[in-house]
Amino acid sequence: MEKKYYTAFEIAKITGGSVFGDGNVKICGLASLKEACPEDLSFLANKKYAGQILSSKSLLIITGKDFAGKIAEKTFIICDNPNLAFSKAIAVFAPPPVKYPPVTHPAAVVADSAKIGANVHIGACAVIDENVVVGDSSVIGAGCYIGQNSSVGKSCLIYPNVSIRERCVIGDRVIIHSGAVIGSDGFGFEAGPGGIVKIEQVGTVEIRDDVEIGANCAIDRARFGKTILKKGVKLDNMVHIAHNVVVGEYSMLIGQCGIAGSAEIGRGVIIAAQAGISGHLNIGDGAKVAGASGVIKDIYPGQVMVGTPAESPREFMERLAAPKKIRQLSERIVELEDKISRFESELSKIKNS
Amino acid sequence: MEKKYYTAFEIAKITGGSVFGDGNVKICGLASLKEACPEDLSFLANKKYAGQILSSKSLLIITGKDFAGKIAEKTFIICDNPNLAFSKAIAVFAPPPVKYPPVTHPAAVVADSAKIGANVHIGACAVIDENVVVGDSSVIGAGCYIGQNSSVGKSCLIYPNVSIRERCVIGDRVIIHSGAVIGSDGFGFEAGPGGIVKIEQVGTVEIRDDVEIGANCAIDRARFGKTILKKGVKLDNMVHIAHNVVVGEYSMLIGQCGIAGSAEIGRGVIIAAQAGISGHLNIGDGAKVAGASGVIKDIYPGQVMVGTPAESPREFMERLAAPKKIRQLSERIVELEDKISRFESELSKIKNS
Amino acid sequence: MEKKYYTAFEIAKITGGSVFGDGNVKICGLASLKEACPEDLSFLANKKYAGQILSSKSLLIITGKDFAGKIAEKTFIICDNPNLAFSKAIAVFAPPPVKYPPVTHPAAVVADSAKIGANVHIGACAVIDENVVVGDSSVIGAGCYIGQNSSVGKSCLIYPNVSIRERCVIGDRVIIHSGAVIGSDGFGFEAGPGGIVKIEQVGTVEIRDDVEIGANCAIDRARFGKTILKKGVKLDNMVHIAHNVVVGEYSMLIGQCGIAGSAEIGRGVIIAAQAGISGHLNIGDGAKVAGASGVIKDIYPGQVMVGTPAESPREFMERLAAPKKIRQLSERIVELEDKISRFESELSKIKNS
Repeated sequence: MEKKYYTAFEIAKITGGSVFGDGNVKICGLASLKEACPEDLSFLANKKYAGQILSSKSLLIITGKDFAGKIAEKTFIICDNPNLAFSKAIAVFAPPPVKYPPVTHPAAVVADSAKIGANVHIGACAVIDENVVVGDSSVIGAGCYIGQNSSVGKSCLIYPNVSIRERCVIGDRVIIHSGAVIGSDGFGFEAGPGGIVKIEQVGTVEIRDDVEIGANCAIDRARFGKTILKKGVKLDNMVHIAHNVVVGEYSMLIGQCGIAGSAEIGRGVIIAAQAGISGHLNIGDGAKVAGASGVIKDIYPGQVMVGTPAESPREFMERLAAPKKIRQLSERIVELEDKISRFESELSKIKNS
Repeated sequence: MEKKYYTAFEIAKITGGSVFGDGNVKICGLASLKEACPEDLSFLANKKYAGQILSSKSLLIITGKDFAGKIAEKTFIICDNPNLAFSKAIAVFAPPPVKYPPVTHPAAVVADSAKIGANVHIGACAVIDENVVVGDSSVIGAGCYIGQNSSVGKSCLIYPNVSIRERCVIGDRVIIHSGAVIGSDGFGFEAGPGGIVKIEQVGTVEIRDDVEIGANCAIDRARFGKTILKKGVKLDNMVHIAHNVVVGEYSMLIGQCGIAGSAEIGRGVIIAAQAGISGHLNIGDGAKVAGASGVIKDIYPGQVMVGTPAESPREFMERLAAPKKIRQLSERIVELEDKISRFESELSKIKNS
Repeated sequence: MEKKYYTAFEIAKITGGSVFGDGNVKICGLASLKEACPEDLSFLANKKYAGQILSSKSLLIITGKDFAGKIAEKTFIICDNPNLAFSKAIAVFAPPPVKYPPVTHPAAVVADSAKIGANVHIGACAVIDENVVVGDSSVIGAGCYIGQNSSVGKSCLIYPNVSIRERCVIGDRVIIHSGAVIGSDGFGFEAGPGGIVKIEQVGTVEIRDDVEIGANCAIDRARFGKTILKKGVKLDNMVHIAHNVVVGEYSMLIGQCGIAGSAEIGRGVIIAAQAGISGHLNIGDGAKVAGASGVIKDIYPGQVMVGTPAESPREFMERLAAPKKIRQLSERIVELEDKISRFESELSKIKNS
């Protein structure tokens, strides 16, 4: 495939930025600052990595308005949001997206009672059970299972090998990555007369519009009522959502975090990777939980929490500083002990004098 | 669908409780205390949430004998186990459970050598390999794979897209949720002459009666011998069981916890969410490991462990209190330093006098 | 099946070891020291467990040269690497490995444009999409999905229900366990004018030769460019690899660990179970990260890191010792306070005298 070249001026037009340097410099690909060759467009989205600009071989770099460097031989395209601007450049070089023909593959298995909208793709070996509804323009990947009486909205993209159990409700424009499981039983058991008794989980899961669910996530159905992911929630890979959890609009749950039963996560919350939220907690709107933290009490709106058990960043920093503090205290105690030894001898001199 | 109403007297009869208040109050649904409307039955299983009764709109609430409240306009149904009692009420309102017709779907693929019991459901695109045995009344969901020479007992419920590798043995009444993998290779490698050498994992997995395995769990086969989940073990979602692990009867492993190779977990153990157990350890009967803990030494029967590395709750609380203790010590040192300064001046006065 | 017996001499020949004790003792099976019966061969790979030899019922035990015990009635086979030697003995007793007939199952779905090599097995209900290439002698398990334009090398073993998205490149002799997902979208979102905007993930995943990927892992495709697992990388179960991560040759990532976006893991690195590596970090060659650690800054080659946030073992041990240190300091302060009280009274005596 022949390479296609773009000038800095052309890239500036595509990305909505302004050229700072030689507008005629040409690129034919894109890469991160570290990996770029001279003919790659690159970008700086986080000033933390500004040092990489100097060592980068890239000659054309998208940056934000707060980056005020002038570097010989390098051309910059200054944009409001370098990350989004770079995405527009990526789109120029990206291979065409996968096309899903709007048909049901002959090797898919669709129940007669299912209602499939217009322009829907159903992949080979997907299984659509009784009374399922799939909205217009949705894609159901190969090997997916959609259980009885569940519904999938319009323009959804359900990647291969997703499992959706019975009576779940999926909104519009929802993306679910491979291996995710929606509607598995909540984990509920009681000590009964003859041992452990399973508490039947007869509720369901509601996934609202514009949600994205990562690979190999598991979203348990409610014991009764609904487990809910509200509009725009984004789940990274391997996130575990227990029964009766509610996650508020546009909250982001990063890789391998887990939310225990009946917890309520507010709107715009960020729960970082590998963090855990205990059951029945309230996590206020806009709260942030640091990676690997273990939250065991409610969090107020906007609060940042870190550590296990999670505490404020100030408390966490104090805890981190403990060994250093102990060393300092130890030194002060040694000084005191020395002084006191000296006093003892002075006192005994005085007494003996 | 027309709403069906039940009186408090009727609910008391269903749940085996006794009415305390107006027995003629009527409900037509059920919800948690927080979400209930006046026509919803609700319940209080944990006195910790008793405060929610006052703010709840529910007029009919199941509680335990230890709840002695009397609240105007609210009726209570007093039960031995409010949680189990509420489950009975849920069953009244629950939609009918999914019916799995006792047939092999024409799009399933079953080897001629497989022995399929009576009244077995095998879903579309499930693949049953050579010499597999499936017991009577079991359900094998759509898209499942069961490998050569494996067996599944009676009345099992294997949800869609479960993978069971060769030579695994699954008992009776076992429930396996979607995406779970049984019998994947244990993680075994050795430094060999030409780099890393894979240690073949030729053992198998034995899942005994009444076990439940959550969505997207992975249970590795033994290097040799068996990885064993004994009778009644319950695994939440995304639990990782490494090779040669043995989990004792009725132990519960909560979401995203992981058990490293050859660890032995006793009977009735609870390992909370995101905890990890190192390899070759013994976890005694009835031990409890707190969420997110990292256990690196044996645990005695009945012991509770918390933190990473896991220690006793007393030790853990002492560790938690370190910053506060350090502040207190620091204050006492300041006091000592002040006193000693004063002594110094007094001593010098005495010496100079 | 009739039992077949082997003498110690025969086992020594198979394992390349030398007999120490009675070479005519016979075994007909194998087991760990703890579980062995008298007719089981056993082994000691780690001197830590040498105590188990005394209590073991096994009469024939493979050990290393550093084990110098002589125990009545027990025979030892001394080997350079007892672990690998035992693997050779296991192979003698192991059931024959699963045979995958070199054919495409009639219930598999293979696009006409796909190029399938010689002696390839494609299982029932596997779906091979447009323009996929599968190399000679590879096995594609039942229910797998391989997306458009992806390629799988020679002699690969892709277990059932694996999902590989479009344009991924898999090398030779790669093993991928069930439920793993390769090429899911990276987790990339930006605050946009109308809320959260998805950053398209148009890159791909490259899995090089001799990689092994555990059950239910997820390897995200790059935002642009490639997420790369280099030659010989081994992933345990449920490992999460975010977009644009690069993992160096022969590194091992143990169960449930997670690597955030754009992190670079060197060669021969070991990241233990449940650990997490933050985004954009460099983890030097041969570094080791302890289980459950949270790494938030670069790691030098060969460095060992432990804890959250991860620090050196020395720092970590100092942190662990904090409660004890605090108790010791507290005692020294009490002593000082006592002495100072005595001084106060002595001083006042002196002043009053």
